Formats: sequence, structure tokens, C-alpha cells
Amino acid sequence: MTDYRRLRVALLGAGAVGSQVAALLRAHADELAERAGARLELAGIAVRDVDAPRSAELPRELLTTDAETLIVGSDIVIELIGGIEPARTYVLQAINSGADVVTGNKALLATHGAEIFDAADQVGASVSYEAAVAAAIPIIRPLRDSLAGDRVHRIIGIVNGTTNYILDRMDREGAELADVLADAQRLGYAEADPTADVEGYDAAQKAAILASLAFHTNVPLDAVHREGITGITKGMMDAARHAGYVIKLIAVCERMVDGEDGTPIGEAVSVRVYPALIARSHPLANVHGVNNAVFVEAEAAGNLMFYGAGAGGMQTASAVLGDVVSAARRHLAGGVGVGESARASLPVLEIGRVVTRYQIILEVDDRPGVLATVAGILSEGHVSIATVEQTINADGATGVERAPEGESGRARLVIGTHTAREQDLSETVERLATSGVVERVVSVLRVEGE
Amino acid sequence: MTDYRRLRVALLGAGAVGSQVAALLRAHADELAERAGARLELAGIAVRDVDAPRSAELPRELLTTDAETLIVGSDIVIELIGGIEPARTYVLQAINSGADVVTGNKALLATHGAEIFDAADQVGASVSYEAAVAAAIPIIRPLRDSLAGDRVHRIIGIVNGTTNYILDRMDREGAELADVLADAQRLGYAEADPTADVEGYDAAQKAAILASLAFHTNVPLDAVHREGITGITKGMMDAARHAGYVIKLIAVCERMVDGEDGTPIGEAVSVRVYPALIARSHPLANVHGVNNAVFVEAEAAGNLMFYGAGAGGMQTASAVLGDVVSAARRHLAGGVGVGESARASLPVLEIGRVVTRYQIILEVDDRPGVLATVAGILSEGHVSIATVEQTINADGATGVERAPEGESGRARLVIGTHTAREQDLSETVERLATSGVVERVVSVLRVEGE
Repeated sequence: MTDYRRLRVALLGAGAVGSQVAALLRAHADELAERAGARLELAGIAVRDVDAPRSAELPRELLTTDAETLIVGSDIVIELIGGIEPARTYVLQAINSGADVVTGNKALLATHGAEIFDAADQVGASVSYEAAVAAAIPIIRPLRDSLAGDRVHRIIGIVNGTTNYILDRMDREGAELADVLADAQRLGYAEADPTADVEGYDAAQKAAILASLAFHTNVPLDAVHREGITGITKGMMDAARHAGYVIKLIAVCERMVDGEDGTPIGEAVSVRVYPALIARSHPLANVHGVNNAVFVEAEAAGNLMFYGAGAGGMQTASAVLGDVVSAARRHLAGGVGVGESARASLPVLEIGRVVTRYQIILEVDDRPGVLATVAGILSEGHVSIATVEQTINADGATGVERAPEGESGRARLVIGTHTAREQDLSETVERLATSGVVERVVSVLRVEGE
Repeated sequence: MTDYRRLRVALLGAGAVGSQVAALLRAHADELAERAGARLELAGIAVRDVDAPRSAELPRELLTTDAETLIVGSDIVIELIGGIEPARTYVLQAINSGADVVTGNKALLATHGAEIFDAADQVGASVSYEAAVAAAIPIIRPLRDSLAGDRVHRIIGIVNGTTNYILDRMDREGAELADVLADAQRLGYAEADPTADVEGYDAAQKAAILASLAFHTNVPLDAVHREGITGITKGMMDAARHAGYVIKLIAVCERMVDGEDGTPIGEAVSVRVYPALIARSHPLANVHGVNNAVFVEAEAAGNLMFYGAGAGGMQTASAVLGDVVSAARRHLAGGVGVGESARASLPVLEIGRVVTRYQIILEVDDRPGVLATVAGILSEGHVSIATVEQTINADGATGVERAPEGESGRARLVIGTHTAREQDLSETVERLATSGVVERVVSVLRVEGE
């Protein structure tokens, strides 16, 4: 057996992912040494409480509550604590002590990414974070390296497994959100407090990370437009299905030129998270259950999709170890780390200036002239109609919710628009709602992936 | 603008991919400099004939027929000549002159990969080849880096766009292979001599490259079992569809322990290319047209899929440029190149020892006792039946070809087996064919992806 050089690895955090990383580091030690060209020696595992119950058997003698001492003298520091502090302090300390950092901390990178990457650049350290987005699905490295010679135009990602599980079951079973959510909580696919997932906070962090990397710019988390899925009903699902769509919570990172209203401002980006209609024929529509997928549209490469499990301790540990091996190779090869490439400062467009297609479902009076009135309001608002379908209450064939019994004389209008500015659209919907002919705006959803 | 260091890039070959690489190097020069941290200076383009017509406007003054002089003093050499010689000689020359090499040459790597990687390791040069498999789809880097801390169990790849286009159209349109192939040739999706594609030679080269990388072993091209698609008929497609499958030409790279016959030999790999049945619900079944996809099953990461365009000058150029930028970063960072990781010498199993499931379609006499006889022969041959469906001639509902008119008294048996050894299966099929009750063996196809 080759007499490998040893590299000292510090692990911060021993939760679901950390435990698996520790277990794999030991179980695959020989193979990892061959891959990395160095023996990866787990020097210690920093935890808050040495006596807390652990999901995998971790050698007691490696556990310590003194992260700062562990970090000093380590070649590679793996940060899997999560959250902002003390993770931020430890990561900066590791960088400044000359270690390479591997982290899966999306909250930290989405809020303090620029600070961390700058610190790493200054000392020539590397910060790797494949595990921060979509677990084991390689997406960070492909964006940073494989597409380094290309131009990414758009990313559409299903980056939250919990919401995909919920929407997928709603779609397949015709169930209501509350019922599926309760089931997901029972099965462990959703947290007791599901806010971070169902309100899109988790997806927004990942969107900020992906957009920053893909467009080589700094997208602050608070510039990401975010809407959750709690407003999605069985009726919307049915209407989507009838029209050939499925509803998915997606993160959209888009490079756009905002010149719609005659004031071209040059290149900008839009980063937004919301439930949207995706055509059944789109590869993202076939992403089921808790799986994740990231669809990338690049100038030369064309359309690419990266698919796999988006969560799980073992899966995320795989991504962490891939980064650890790369960091080890870098350490051995010498030289300085490859920093994040120079950051452009592209403006991030507010949501009102984003241009997409929409599906609008209205409940209207079923009498002559209503469609003409609706069409007139849309036209005045610069929203052009692509398709329109009218269904009267008695007709359940569309799968659209029927109006309550006794309220005959109403119809549903399912309107598909051409591309329109979000602000024009929302103002127009407001006017429709108060027009006198619209009883209720049933739903307004963007159509993405076209 | 930053005053970047300049790196000298030599381009060998100015075909469909080379022209695009040259065009993108110039069109994106500023962005590439930012990404790479160095200005990528195209020092020259080696061609066989300076006066040949080119698909993109290439500066005449860069063209040269003297590749060897161009290579000397280059920091990065991009080899896009294709074929074995002179590509092999130039690549070795580039490595030995201290350059990093980027190549898209699958034939060269599948046949002389070990020689080239050894040469690179000796001088600390890097050889990158993302473009050699599935064009712009990042698959080499994910296997080499992202999954470096994991264990790949199996890869199933749709890695040839031409055959996927043909089989996809046969499936969707109910067309015969010859008709679709002629159309594909007319549209430029298939060569005038389609042998390399339809007989699986192209896919076999890619399979050898993927297996070598994924299993860190050397898989010689002639160890890859290869079957083409020319035997696939409309009838087989119909039968597959009826049973919930689609037929795809796939490259399977599998880690297996061959101990079936009581002689455990430890770990081995199997690498094979053939048309196989894939369940409609499998992500690979939704890969349409000329697209490629590589499905990877790893121990910790679980199932991953990489999807996109598998060919095209522009798409392949994107992969080449990603490698060029990485090579440039490496050059700047200093240190030695990351070689292919140490190569295990896992035995490659011959096809007879491979274990899969099968679908066997037989035309049999429609009389009592036939099924019992067939079942008996299968059982004696150690082939266990999972499902069996019998269709008589008058019943076209299965979509299976009917027997010719006037040959009543025959039936079709569609048999799905449990896993069986290939050798047992082929011997059993042989016995069935000569059993007296089987009129014709209509098809025998493996079932993969389960």
C-alpha cells in the first residue's frame, strides 16, 4: 500500500450529514486515499454536546466542544453546523488559518457568501459548497467549471424536495395541500414547522447561491423574490392538469435585458422563487417526489438538466466528500485556490419588471359581453391573450372547480397570456377584480420553462 | 480592465467543433479572461489544408499545417482532430512539452487512454476530456470530482444521439428502422455510412471511457460487449410499448461480484452496449430525439441523471472551453496536474457471466401443453419466469405482430424473466428454438434500469 501523506481534516457538526461524513471517511478510507492522493485523517469532530445521542457511531475520543482549537492546524475544515453563527466565525477562522473549507451551509452562503469568498481569495484558500444546493446532485461544480467557457441564460430549479413531494402528490392524487402536508410531516419529509420549505425560504437561499455563481455576480438573499405554495389548491392543480401543465415550486435565475418600457438599462438578472406552471412535456415536469432537478439553459451548451435526490444525510455526505477529495488534491498539488471568478455587479430586477407568461383563471358572470369586457381590460393593460377557454358551471369536464350549488349563471375563464410585464399583469388583474363582471379571481400563475 | 497574464492556446483541428471553439474564444475573450484569470490567446490553428472551406470565419493568419511547431511553447493544447493518428502523437508531444491537454477525442481515449494518462502523470500535466462523452453534458467532471468520495455502482447511459433519435421516432411513430434511418440521414442526424452509430461502436468508446473513470480501472475498448440496433423492428417496439417499456440503445457500466456459479472471483466490472428495454417510468425513458442522458447509481449519492444535447459543434465547444478555463486556472495556480486516480485492475466480465432480466417473445403452436413445455425448458436452464402473456393470432390488442394469414394455430408468448445469467439464457433460448414447440424466437431483449 502506498505510503500516503496525511491531511488533517476537522469536522464541525455531527448531525445527519456530519455523522455520515464521519462514517464514510472511515469506511472508505483506503479508496479516498487513492482518489485524493493523501490519507484523510479525521482529527476531530466539534459538537455542542459531547454526550448528545448520535445517529451513527462516532468515536467518542474524536468529539470535542472546542471547535477553535480543532480548526488550528487543520488542512481541510468541513463545516456542517448550519445557520449563521457560529458557523460564519469558524469558517472565517479556518480560511485565515490556511485551511480549505468545505461547507453545506446554504443560509451562510446566501447571506455572507461575498464576505467568505473575499476572505478566501485574499489568502488563496478554496471554499467548496456542492452540498449547499440539491445535495448530491453536482450543480455547483458544473456551473463553476464545466460551463466556465459558456454563458448561462437561465436556470430553473426544483431545489426543495419537501414542496416537490407535496405538489407531486397533490397532482397525482388530487389531494388538498393541508392533507398532503400533514402526511409529509408524519413521514418525515416535512418539518413540524414547515415554513422554511413551504414558504420558499429554503429555495430562495439556493436561488441566491445559484444565481451568484451562474452570473458571476453577487445576488443578496433579500433581492430574491419569494412566494410559497400555501395558496395552491386542488382546483388550481386540476386546472393546470387540464391545460397540460403541472405546478412546481421553482427557483428561476434569469439573465435579462430590461428595456421593455423604453429605458434599456443593459444587462440585469432576475432571481425569483414561486409556484409556476410547467408544461407536462418539459423535463422538469417528470421530477417526482422529493427529488430535485436543475435545468440550465446556456448559450453554447444548450439545455442541460441535473437530476437526483435533493436531500438526505447520506446523499449530502457524498457531495461533501467529493469536495473534500478535490480540496485534498489541491492541497497536494500546491498553488493557490481557484477563487470565485471576478464578480460582476449586475442589477437584480425587482419582480414588477420581470416578463413571463401567465395563466389567469376568472369566475365571471355567464352573460353576453363579459368576454369582450375582460379582453378589453387585458388589452388596455398591455396583456395579450394567447388562449382562452370558457367553461360553464355545469361542465365539470375541464377539471376546474365548480361554483357552489345555486350560483348558476357563472362561468370560468381560463386565460393564457403572451409574455407580459409582471407589473402590467398585476395592475390588470386588479382592474379585472373590480370591473364588475369578474366575480372572483380564482388564480394567477406564471408559466415557466418555455 | 485587469492586466491579465496571457496563456498561449494551440488548437489542433478546425472542423465543426474546432471552428466553434475558435469563434467562442474570440467572441467571449473578456469573459473567459475573467473566468480563467488569464487571457487565452489563440496562438494558431493546425489544419491539414489551409485552403479548405471552413464552417466559421477563421483568421487566415492563424491557420497552419505545422502542428508540431505550434505545440511547442503552448500552455494549453486543444486536440480536436479526432481518430488515432496523428492525434495520439500530437497529444503525447504536447504533454511532454509541458502543456495541459484538452481533447474531445473518444476514439483516442478509448484505445490509448492508459498510455496518455500515464504520460501526463509522469510530467504532472492534466488531460481533460469532458467533450469526449455526451458533448456539453457535464459527466466526466462529476464522475472524477463530485463523486470522488463515493462509490459508483452502475451507469446507464444514452450516449449516442443518432440511435436515440431513430429508436425514439420508431417508438413514437410506429415506423420501421430503415425508414427512420433514411430520414435521419437526410436531416443530417445520421452519417451516410451509419455503422459507427447504429452498430454501437461510438457508444462502446464512450462506455469504455465512462467505466474506466467511474471504476478507477482500465477498461480496454475490446472488453466492451457491443450490439447495435439494426435488429430492432417495429414489432419489437410495439411489444415493448405494450409491456410498459421503451427500447433504448444503452451503455451499461456495472460493478458486480461474479459469484453466481459458486466461484466468487471478487469484484469485477461489466461494460456493455446493446438495445434494451427500459421501463416507461424510468427517467431515461423520457430522453427523446438526439438528446443524451447518463444515469448514475452511486452508493451514497443515490441515483443521479445528467441530461442534455449529446452532439453538435457549439455544444461540444462549450465542454471544450470549460476544460480550457479549468486548465488555465490550474496553470496559474501552479502545482502539478491532478492525474487520473490510481487505476485498479478490476477484471472485465465477459458477457456470458452478466446477470440481467430478459423479455423473450416466442411464436409457438397454439395447443395444450406448449406453455408447460416452454416453462420446463426455462426451468431446466435456470431461467425463472416472472411474467408470461399469451396472445393468439386473432388478438391484435397486444400490439404484437400478427403471424401471417393462414397460419392460424399459432400464438405468441411474451415472457419476462427474473434475473438470469446471460450464458444460461442464451443456451436456454437455443434449446427453445429447437424444442419442436417453438416456431420462431421473435426477440430476446435485456431489461435494464431496475
